[in-house]
Amino acid sequence: MRAARYYGKEDIRVEEVEVDPCGDGQVRVAPSYVGICGTDLHEFLGGPTFAPVTPHPLSRESIPITLGHEFSGVVSEKGGFIGLSGGGGGLSDSVVVPQGSVLSLPEQIPLEIGALVEPLSVAWHAVSAAALLPESTVLVLGGGPIGLAVVQCLVALKTKKIIMSEVSKTRQRFAKEFGAHHVLDPKTYDLVAISRELSGQGGPDVVFDCAGVPASLVTACRAVKPRGTVVNVAIWEREVPFQPNMLVFKEAHYTAVLGYQREDFQAVIDHLANGTLKPDKMITSTISLDDVVEGGIKALIKDKESHVKILVKVGGP
Amino acid sequence: MRAARYYGKEDIRVEEVEVDPCGDGQVRVAPSYVGICGTDLHEFLGGPTFAPVTPHPLSRESIPITLGHEFSGVVSEKGGFIGLSGGGGGLSDSVVVPQGSVLSLPEQIPLEIGALVEPLSVAWHAVSAAALLPESTVLVLGGGPIGLAVVQCLVALKTKKIIMSEVSKTRQRFAKEFGAHHVLDPKTYDLVAISRELSGQGGPDVVFDCAGVPASLVTACRAVKPRGTVVNVAIWEREVPFQPNMLVFKEAHYTAVLGYQREDFQAVIDHLANGTLKPDKMITSTISLDDVVEGGIKALIKDKESHVKILVKVGGP
Repeated sequence: MRAARYYGKEDIRVEEVEVDPCGDGQVRVAPSYVGICGTDLHEFLGGPTFAPVTPHPLSRESIPITLGHEFSGVVSEKGGFIGLSGGGGGLSDSVVVPQGSVLSLPEQIPLEIGALVEPLSVAWHAVSAAALLPESTVLVLGGGPIGLAVVQCLVALKTKKIIMSEVSKTRQRFAKEFGAHHVLDPKTYDLVAISRELSGQGGPDVVFDCAGVPASLVTACRAVKPRGTVVNVAIWEREVPFQPNMLVFKEAHYTAVLGYQREDFQAVIDHLANGTLKPDKMITSTISLDDVVEGGIKALIKDKESHVKILVKVGGP
Repeated sequence: MRAARYYGKEDIRVEEVEVDPCGDGQVRVAPSYVGICGTDLHEFLGGPTFAPVTPHPLSRESIPITLGHEFSGVVSEKGGFIGLSGGGGGLSDSVVVPQGSVLSLPEQIPLEIGALVEPLSVAWHAVSAAALLPESTVLVLGGGPIGLAVVQCLVALKTKKIIMSEVSKTRQRFAKEFGAHHVLDPKTYDLVAISRELSGQGGPDVVFDCAGVPASLVTACRAVKPRGTVVNVAIWEREVPFQPNMLVFKEAHYTAVLGYQREDFQAVIDHLANGTLKPDKMITSTISLDDVVEGGIKALIKDKESHVKILVKVGGP
């Protein structure tokens, strides 16, 4: 079968590999659509970070590994004999996963949208980490795919005031389309002052840092209201300067999230099914598996801001 | 009346000042014992930080101001006429405060111990900020007055495993006396590894950073268990290097506390009254008001580690 395999920094190859056996308690999935994620770009540009260079304790695999962690697909086989998979990924014709880790998509959710469940679950998990109320004021720093997914989850939860900070005009437009109430360029506005004014109190109840740069850490800590919560949804490339007093003098909380849990996936699927999450516009391009490096990874590196999510159509109906 | 007044960096004067009137809804307190706190030292060495240089929005006072925020005393007058106090502090013969802000000490608590209610309340507030269970494993970084107060509060809550990290031999001894189960020198032990081993899981449930130095921030974030909580009880003198991924990869929480609320004072008084808090050994010296600079502030700067708490006896029975 075909698979996009990560060999290391700037080295992803679409090649033929053996099909993994499908063991007891496992299911074989034929991936349909696979999203390309910022983490894939990080691995390509500066990895391996997540990709294991020595055998991973769970998958027992080390590089090369098959990429693709945001995907939908069709169950093609249910296992009948004992055996353990090595890992695999969505960027291949077939992947074997534990039966219990598969969630079925209701019929009204197309497979394209199914590939968005993973990034939306990251956002749902982040939003669930904050003690949000419908009357909360929320500031979201950074309008990349995750920042935009956070905005959509906040809209689904009917959050009263959603403020987005983003420098790129294209992303500002996306944020508006997805329902942010105020979209501000941090180069034009004093974000701490304006978000305090807009919240009508000492600052937003919750600030989501979806940018993960030194300036966003400072803005998040300075903007959040006394006893409010900063939720970090970013992965950081390096150490940054930090003055804990920013949090101390207002007894604020800093909470870090990574990934998601099964219930986040289910919540996202439920909200997609009932139409409170409408992420269609996140898909800015759909490419083939053979084009994954040039039309996917490199296109995103070259012009990240024009895209929210590039999907790779691998197979399926 | 006499008062120890803070004029600025390295300038505290015990001098005669006017007695404030006692207005409606206020009470006059004759301070008995006043603790000297690390914050007093910070103000003396590098302030003004907390001390207002322009009129404070609440007290309307600016320096010189009367020091002394950890104190017990005797109510000497209840107000009968309207008027607002400017501020004042415990390091004086008399201080006027709002009636509602005074908590009475049960008879079995001596006034010396009353002056320890404030620092113990800081610790109580910090301990209350963590989701502690009796079976929790807790790591306390730094055995200064607040770190030792945190240990006492954890003991009062019957916390199963209390690990203290402290370099000074004298403070290590205090930590043992106050009931820490393991007292470790971070120069000898790999604190992350040993606290993981002692907790029998991925790390301590809660880490209290009572040191507030770059190394303690890193140790706290590295030691805490996945989804655990770091509680910062320190005030920071400057910006420090911070890699948020330390929290991200384990979805940990960082919570900052400052000060206390009225219920923390009451909880401490209740625990002092029923004997579950026994802080007598915190008092390592008692001096007179005239000796506050030499025998108090400067003695602590010169040899901080031999002392937990120096009390100034101002008046009273």
